[in-house]
Amino acid sequence: MSADYLFPHRHILGLGDLAAADIDFILKTAESFKEISQRSIKKVPTLRGKTVINLFLEPSTRTRLSFEIAAKRMSADTFNISGAGSSTAKGETMVDTARNLAAMNPDCIIIRHSCSGSPGLLARHIDASVINAGDGAHEHPSQGLLDLMTVREHKGRIAGLKVAIIGDITHSRVAHSNIIGFCKMGAEVRVAGPATLIPPGIAAMGAQHCRSVRQAVSGADVVMTLRIQKERQQDPLLPSLREYAIFYGITPEIMALAAPDAILMHPGPINRGVELDPALADGPRSVILDQVTNGVAIRMALLYLIMGGE
Amino acid sequence: MSADYLFPHRHILGLGDLAAADIDFILKTAESFKEISQRSIKKVPTLRGKTVINLFLEPSTRTRLSFEIAAKRMSADTFNISGAGSSTAKGETMVDTARNLAAMNPDCIIIRHSCSGSPGLLARHIDASVINAGDGAHEHPSQGLLDLMTVREHKGRIAGLKVAIIGDITHSRVAHSNIIGFCKMGAEVRVAGPATLIPPGIAAMGAQHCRSVRQAVSGADVVMTLRIQKERQQDPLLPSLREYAIFYGITPEIMALAAPDAILMHPGPINRGVELDPALADGPRSVILDQVTNGVAIRMALLYLIMGGE
Amino acid sequence: MSADYLFPHRHILGLGDLAAADIDFILKTAESFKEISQRSIKKVPTLRGKTVINLFLEPSTRTRLSFEIAAKRMSADTFNISGAGSSTAKGETMVDTARNLAAMNPDCIIIRHSCSGSPGLLARHIDASVINAGDGAHEHPSQGLLDLMTVREHKGRIAGLKVAIIGDITHSRVAHSNIIGFCKMGAEVRVAGPATLIPPGIAAMGAQHCRSVRQAVSGADVVMTLRIQKERQQDPLLPSLREYAIFYGITPEIMALAAPDAILMHPGPINRGVELDPALADGPRSVILDQVTNGVAIRMALLYLIMGGE
Repeated sequence: MSADYLFPHRHILGLGDLAAADIDFILKTAESFKEISQRSIKKVPTLRGKTVINLFLEPSTRTRLSFEIAAKRMSADTFNISGAGSSTAKGETMVDTARNLAAMNPDCIIIRHSCSGSPGLLARHIDASVINAGDGAHEHPSQGLLDLMTVREHKGRIAGLKVAIIGDITHSRVAHSNIIGFCKMGAEVRVAGPATLIPPGIAAMGAQHCRSVRQAVSGADVVMTLRIQKERQQDPLLPSLREYAIFYGITPEIMALAAPDAILMHPGPINRGVELDPALADGPRSVILDQVTNGVAIRMALLYLIMGGE
Repeated sequence: MSADYLFPHRHILGLGDLAAADIDFILKTAESFKEISQRSIKKVPTLRGKTVINLFLEPSTRTRLSFEIAAKRMSADTFNISGAGSSTAKGETMVDTARNLAAMNPDCIIIRHSCSGSPGLLARHIDASVINAGDGAHEHPSQGLLDLMTVREHKGRIAGLKVAIIGDITHSRVAHSNIIGFCKMGAEVRVAGPATLIPPGIAAMGAQHCRSVRQAVSGADVVMTLRIQKERQQDPLLPSLREYAIFYGITPEIMALAAPDAILMHPGPINRGVELDPALADGPRSVILDQVTNGVAIRMALLYLIMGGE
Repeated sequence: MSADYLFPHRHILGLGDLAAADIDFILKTAESFKEISQRSIKKVPTLRGKTVINLFLEPSTRTRLSFEIAAKRMSADTFNISGAGSSTAKGETMVDTARNLAAMNPDCIIIRHSCSGSPGLLARHIDASVINAGDGAHEHPSQGLLDLMTVREHKGRIAGLKVAIIGDITHSRVAHSNIIGFCKMGAEVRVAGPATLIPPGIAAMGAQHCRSVRQAVSGADVVMTLRIQKERQQDPLLPSLREYAIFYGITPEIMALAAPDAILMHPGPINRGVELDPALADGPRSVILDQVTNGVAIRMALLYLIMGGE
């Protein structure tokens, strides 16, 4: 990183928009925030007077909370809007909602929305910075970044690692951000899951479609299993939970195929006994809770870089 | 305004309670808050340590958010209570809810309620200041004030202007506060809309009932169209959305009847293509987003005057 | 209290865990917080930088608000999570939710949950302090403490007082915390209510089961009536509201049996005319709103003692 690097983004819409140098800079910033907070300096005045709106039009506990904690630790004022009771329910268009929020002069809008591309639409119509906190099946960049941070923390590097991502790739914004991010940072990404749930363009994204979970996990340095969305269980493309657990669940036997020092990741919330064996979730290879801790640091870094970094 | 004018109100229940001098003072205070915030001084310590409760028993995004932003920009602590999960749902009377909130010693309660008069009831039973954020079909004073501010900002004055208010006047608390406010400040107010939705006492309020939208808009300096409440579409008094758009919607052709420099207002959220043509909503005469911006300034002024002004 | 007493608890799970000396110390701390706030010092920096999560998985207005006000008056950052939209709805186990919240490094989690024992489960799995804000029919310790504070404030002491608790004892966590608390502090506790709703082990808890409301109230210094939970009206164990009012409601005639200076308490929200006569609720013996006011002071004390007291 040259000394005169300047973070060039006002919005964080997806890892697809970020260069490897940007990602590296975000990770370094997050690492320093994590270090500061471990010295028990919990609150800093960096973003005092800044207005951050959490516009969560899909349900979320942990991502909303993580962003809100990140913002308040830097002394920003936070405002929560959820789907229920919002103007969207009264038939307002997304662009009108955006312009109305913008008219109150916020500094940053963090948006979760069921439609892919809505954060980009928002960003084109308002002056405030926009962070995508998950848009449909498109991207969830802060999740991708916290996963990269967690891998680098445990492995010392990302380039050259073998990363296996297992599950419903097609509908997972977490998978998409991770595939993009790990590929950009030089890792070898393999995916596996029900054939109906692997998108055709996976090779074009830089990842390798493995025919079996065993093949994907063999020799992997990182095994990431995705949450099976029970909400989607009516979907005829999806196997039953029982079938899923048998054919795609990560068990100690499967995990034994990975590298001896492989780490195990999951974006949460976990369906124990479906996509992940409970013993593994709580075992020594699991870095799942580190992912959550790093999530706050990544979100502090993003808020800082787009609003406070001069 | 004489130098020794003191703002005489502890509650803001409706424009019906405010003298023209009070309204003028609120607008001037809001104008100075707007000016300060444009010099990018976003946060002031004026209301530090004050407790402001947002008691929103009807759904709202924008009004609640606007009050919350206003309060936090002056460093007050804010607390949100919504209808769902509230004690009211457990069968508590409004007066008991009020007394219970008051027992926690808040400085101000901002209330939105479906029953006309409930903010007044609250104010009679508690020590804290009360701001009406919309009570049934009665009043929505902060909206009326932000509309007055927006008109004065664009027109330099209010007295003598011709103001056309179009839509369902009977059920609109926004219309009621505006009719009262514009009349008090010396404007000529005309209303038009479906005959079944214009209240009989409109002349007593000081406004003129025009037989047609065209007549109301002709020569007007300000054209304000109201949101048609789709929630009310089962109401047999109401025309269908299609009929409404044809007979009462504001179109470029109708707007051409207004004064050449007329401004166009709407309290939001807009039903595009129903009460307002999309081209007008986004056109040069629209001051709709200024209304939203001024809403924060008006609410800062109200909170300041009833809690912080000594 | 010896000068070298140190508050020995990191969690507040129930009055069952607290010694009489601990309760006394909490009450003294709360009394001094109340005195400070009456000198109109509303905000103190004591808990600045501390992160307090309100995890309310059952609906609540007043308890959540009371904790939030308490936390913000000491400058802590507060975060609200409600049942709707939470990860629990996505099938996450309670322990996983706990660990995930803990991974974001909060200082205190305040939990309300429909399952008895869930705050204890939380406390065993995380580093943060846990306060039980009501767990099923088990305990509601901050309510018990605010009731003890209110009695001591009005009576000057607790030991030796006769306390009558009337209503559905079996399902009331308020009753349980109060029975434990008043017994520990040396009061004589009598309970009365529908026979089907008095738990068999009441004598083992130290309370006396009276055959009638009249017997329980006779000569009592404190009469506490419990909220009849209309939500539970399908329960065949429960009399109808009309029967309840007649046989178990507190009326002026019943209250006349108590000591001449007896006080009347209710945890709220009141069903006026069911468990309590409206004239009594608003009468000179009622200390119901003092209970609410003292609730904020008790919660400030609890937050201070478990997080800020060194």
